[in-house]
Amino acid sequence: MPLPAHIVAGQGQFLIDGSFGIGLEGYTEPRLVLARQRFLDRLSRETGIFFQGEAQASPASFTIKTGGASNPVQQLGEDESYRLDISTTHVQLTAANPLGVLRGLQTFLQLVKITPQGFGVPVAAIDDQPRFPWRGLMLDAGRHFMPVPVIERNLDGMEAVKLNVFHWHLSDNQGFRVESRQFPLLHEKGSGGLYYTQKQVGEVIQYARERGIRVVPEFDMPCHTTSWFIGYPQLASGAGPYQLETRWGVFDPAMDPTRESTYQFLDKFLGEMTALFPDAYFHIGGDECNEKEWDANPQIKAFMTAHGLQNDAALQSYFTARVQKLVAGHHKIMEGWDEVLQPDTPHDVVIQSWRGPSALAEAARKGNRAMLSAGYYIDLNQSAAEHYLADPLAGDGASLTVEQKARVLGGEATMWSEFVTPENVDSRIWPRTAAIAERLWSPQETRDVRSMYSRLAIISRQLEYYGLEHQSFTGLMLRRMSGEDDPEPLKVLATVVQPPEGYTRGGLKEYHTFTPLNRLVDAVPPESETARKFNDLAKLIAAGKASPEQWQEARNWLALWRDNDARLQPSLEKSEITAELAPLSRSLSQVAAMGLQALDDLQNHRVADATALQKNLQLLEAAKKPQAVLLDMVSPSVQLLVQATAAQ
Amino acid sequence: MPLPAHIVAGQGQFLIDGSFGIGLEGYTEPRLVLARQRFLDRLSRETGIFFQGEAQASPASFTIKTGGASNPVQQLGEDESYRLDISTTHVQLTAANPLGVLRGLQTFLQLVKITPQGFGVPVAAIDDQPRFPWRGLMLDAGRHFMPVPVIERNLDGMEAVKLNVFHWHLSDNQGFRVESRQFPLLHEKGSGGLYYTQKQVGEVIQYARERGIRVVPEFDMPCHTTSWFIGYPQLASGAGPYQLETRWGVFDPAMDPTRESTYQFLDKFLGEMTALFPDAYFHIGGDECNEKEWDANPQIKAFMTAHGLQNDAALQSYFTARVQKLVAGHHKIMEGWDEVLQPDTPHDVVIQSWRGPSALAEAARKGNRAMLSAGYYIDLNQSAAEHYLADPLAGDGASLTVEQKARVLGGEATMWSEFVTPENVDSRIWPRTAAIAERLWSPQETRDVRSMYSRLAIISRQLEYYGLEHQSFTGLMLRRMSGEDDPEPLKVLATVVQPPEGYTRGGLKEYHTFTPLNRLVDAVPPESETARKFNDLAKLIAAGKASPEQWQEARNWLALWRDNDARLQPSLEKSEITAELAPLSRSLSQVAAMGLQALDDLQNHRVADATALQKNLQLLEAAKKPQAVLLDMVSPSVQLLVQATAAQ
Repeated sequence: MPLPAHIVAGQGQFLIDGSFGIGLEGYTEPRLVLARQRFLDRLSRETGIFFQGEAQASPASFTIKTGGASNPVQQLGEDESYRLDISTTHVQLTAANPLGVLRGLQTFLQLVKITPQGFGVPVAAIDDQPRFPWRGLMLDAGRHFMPVPVIERNLDGMEAVKLNVFHWHLSDNQGFRVESRQFPLLHEKGSGGLYYTQKQVGEVIQYARERGIRVVPEFDMPCHTTSWFIGYPQLASGAGPYQLETRWGVFDPAMDPTRESTYQFLDKFLGEMTALFPDAYFHIGGDECNEKEWDANPQIKAFMTAHGLQNDAALQSYFTARVQKLVAGHHKIMEGWDEVLQPDTPHDVVIQSWRGPSALAEAARKGNRAMLSAGYYIDLNQSAAEHYLADPLAGDGASLTVEQKARVLGGEATMWSEFVTPENVDSRIWPRTAAIAERLWSPQETRDVRSMYSRLAIISRQLEYYGLEHQSFTGLMLRRMSGEDDPEPLKVLATVVQPPEGYTRGGLKEYHTFTPLNRLVDAVPPESETARKFNDLAKLIAAGKASPEQWQEARNWLALWRDNDARLQPSLEKSEITAELAPLSRSLSQVAAMGLQALDDLQNHRVADATALQKNLQLLEAAKKPQAVLLDMVSPSVQLLVQATAAQ
Repeated sequence: MPLPAHIVAGQGQFLIDGSFGIGLEGYTEPRLVLARQRFLDRLSRETGIFFQGEAQASPASFTIKTGGASNPVQQLGEDESYRLDISTTHVQLTAANPLGVLRGLQTFLQLVKITPQGFGVPVAAIDDQPRFPWRGLMLDAGRHFMPVPVIERNLDGMEAVKLNVFHWHLSDNQGFRVESRQFPLLHEKGSGGLYYTQKQVGEVIQYARERGIRVVPEFDMPCHTTSWFIGYPQLASGAGPYQLETRWGVFDPAMDPTRESTYQFLDKFLGEMTALFPDAYFHIGGDECNEKEWDANPQIKAFMTAHGLQNDAALQSYFTARVQKLVAGHHKIMEGWDEVLQPDTPHDVVIQSWRGPSALAEAARKGNRAMLSAGYYIDLNQSAAEHYLADPLAGDGASLTVEQKARVLGGEATMWSEFVTPENVDSRIWPRTAAIAERLWSPQETRDVRSMYSRLAIISRQLEYYGLEHQSFTGLMLRRMSGEDDPEPLKVLATVVQPPEGYTRGGLKEYHTFTPLNRLVDAVPPESETARKFNDLAKLIAAGKASPEQWQEARNWLALWRDNDARLQPSLEKSEITAELAPLSRSLSQVAAMGLQALDDLQNHRVADATALQKNLQLLEAAKKPQAVLLDMVSPSVQLLVQATAAQ
């Protein structure tokens, strides 16, 4: 995963043992030698077999043939194709440059599996290249700081699924996260002590380059900028003084686009940051201005009148155009969110579309290049399937001309960090981002959701080997909140609940930047695998297509959930954190009992009377509402079963 | 854990919330500031609550009062005592120097637990200091190289249980693991590319110092030195050429103690290494010379005759005395294994006793300082209880005079690495080393095994929070060997088997340095907790003291194990690694069935006839033998039950 563009499967398998070694042919560079070592380390993790760094046997059992160098700074659209020929005795990986080699090595790693003969890879010939050249993950380090090890392990995850852009959201109202030597009060006053040194930034960029990943920084402006104004209030449109924002939402502070001093500051700042980040693209944000500070400032109003700027959108457009010139002056191509696209936006500005496929298509029609992020908001707790089926060239995009379509560069998963910490962020990114990575790499017609989920389970396991903590974090957090070594009934509850989708969470409870994210909602993955599988069963049963084994499986699940409450309740009150789960656990038990009753009714072709049915459906509606900021994901399936009893 | 020397428990608890902060009073230094940050990071891990680096409230809820500095290079016997006063509103940690502060912070971290009111620490006054000044962990990086992250996470574990010496076994027949600038062929030819750079060594020493841990290097000589001779054959007593050893055992190669050039080399080498490692002690090994090369070399024989050296022991003694002078010349105190103790060994040489308490007592009587490692060989898969009850001042040690007892410095757990890799080494060290740490820190009369096991379970969980992988590795390895996401029946088998104790493993199968350690024996902890708990049940039942619930629990376990084979067998053959487990799984099922029968017989006061009894006991003897290099740990308990049926 992502599924390669072309696979021809063969007979037999290539076996991996201690004699396995890799020879480098053709062009070579230190990055390839490092990649080989990293590959062998991972293969060791996958097999428990030790390998020598250099091929021992001659000829080596695995040969890498590299055509030539890639660019010193990785460019958008560089060739990432590769060919992988696996026979029973030899593997040949061929690529035009090191980028293709990196991609091909990951494909091989994903094919390794244990067999009766040992660890092996099936014989195959694979010809592969990406569908889109810009396949990214955005990580918001502004709202919750993410230490370098978190970034690095996620870069490892990105490499595994062939993503090639790490978009680093580095400043927001709640924090400014990079050391600035030109304007040290930015990080000194704007970060609460949590920022990346320039040395660390350099290390992350190097780490990413070794994995074939570009690093695009984002400094969001003119809004989302409270953290700048603590040290430099003169940039702001309001009177100040400013304090670091500790709430979540859209806030008033905005840069003053009317003063020349603002642009002088930004020019110097951009000079420093464009030198620190070598990538050709530079993201200036530009989203979500609420414009209240502008409207309240008479000088700004006067400037607008004087310059014929009819409204706040025009004022932002003026600001964006000025900043674009500064960015271009530092030899970078500007990127921004949907809002930066205005009638006179230069064509080389790249648009990141958070508003949706229509906004994306509009940008492409106007002649700008653009990428999709709407549909890939992995902070919103949607299912992998929903993300998977969002296609940059679906909907409005399908009607673009060939030339316009070529302006659609790809997409980016966006990990906004209101509700994640270094502890659980991996679980919001993985494994769902692997589904997005497949959407962006594999041919458009690769859309089988069932196949996606089965392969997602495999890559998810593999990512744990690579150091990601998206699976292991749940166990640690459940132990912590319960104070028990093996809180088995709590685990049962945890497998069938999910955080609510979208932006509802913020409305259910008050959160600020220092609210502990240590509750059950923080400890479960965004998508319950158990509930998804049970839902498949419920659909089969409701449709009269389930086998006796499937009926029995459904009964077993429901009985487990019905009986779990009695086991769980006594321990819940022992912890301030789990006490709030009592109603949710009780409700799950009731819902499961109702599900068992529905199964009985279905099996005996009994039709419940209308009053009882209505009552049950009402109870189910109530059970589907969030409790303790969590959704019981069994209810929708039980609802299916109850409805089926009425339909018999 | 280790249990403090004095605790006075109070009423109520100190609650931890986001306002928690730490103030430093009295003496301060960067190490204390770092320790505070690390403490807050861990407290965050333990609670999921965010804390600010500096105390927000004034006065801070937690005050650290440090009397003064500790030595620039940590010395043996420095004051590590501290006092911890926990009230409902405030915590006061007082210590003479930063070492005591480090120890006290760990005590506090271990007291945090979730309660109905939130995370809290019980009110108490704790006065604590160590029983022994030398409390170590030896890690053998010679046989299997251990990368720096492995070392670092184990230093974290050491800090958590108040160990204060990291003994780094850096060279052996199978590898020389430190960069030498004086003699680069040592690491270039003797390590297979796996060695620590001097920069890394410095970083490890710094990392250890921050945690109050001394680093004592060991370069084993004159034997265990094959890896030296590949680059420098002129040091050897044999003709060479030499190759890196890939087998396990005791081998012939030995340095030539008769040539002056050997001492010139060693003097220069020791000059380099004593400068790299700042600790006052320097370990030269000296163990297990088989002397074959000496006996086969006529020049060496002639030298012995000329110098009146009657036998090989005298020759080694001559060598040791020469090396001791070189070590002393570089201002270090020499340390060595038992063998270096000879009649004329200088009194300042420290003896590490692997032969046992008598050898330790002998050294102390002779006037040398010494420490115990016999009993703490954590590579031998003994139980935590066995290690826990081994006391440096028990047995022969008990009869020492007060003055002689003062020469017993403490002890060291020794992690020899024939059968561990970076992947499972944590599981051989932890949690059992915490029991050894308690032996060396807590008062001698702290010996309750049941209490030790209950506290060991808690610290074990805590160590996982700190990044150790001694619990999580099993899940990953079982998934890998089975190729299944959740190999439930394999897990059931894994919980009741253990690697064989002592040195038997090497006799059961041929192993060399590159043998993959990826089988079930490598994936299970050295001590089965489930089997230990079942054994407690079996003893109660056999003694007629079990409650009805305990009877039922035993039945449930046995039924699970009896039925597990049918669930497990079909999947075993799918993997080359698990195929060998078929007989073991079958045998467990038979043993469990026999156990259930014994329970029935006991409950119904039925006495089995003598022939059937004999047959069963024979089957159990067979089941107790290793299969697939693993012991079924249920058999001994079932044996108890079967024997009990005969005794009714």
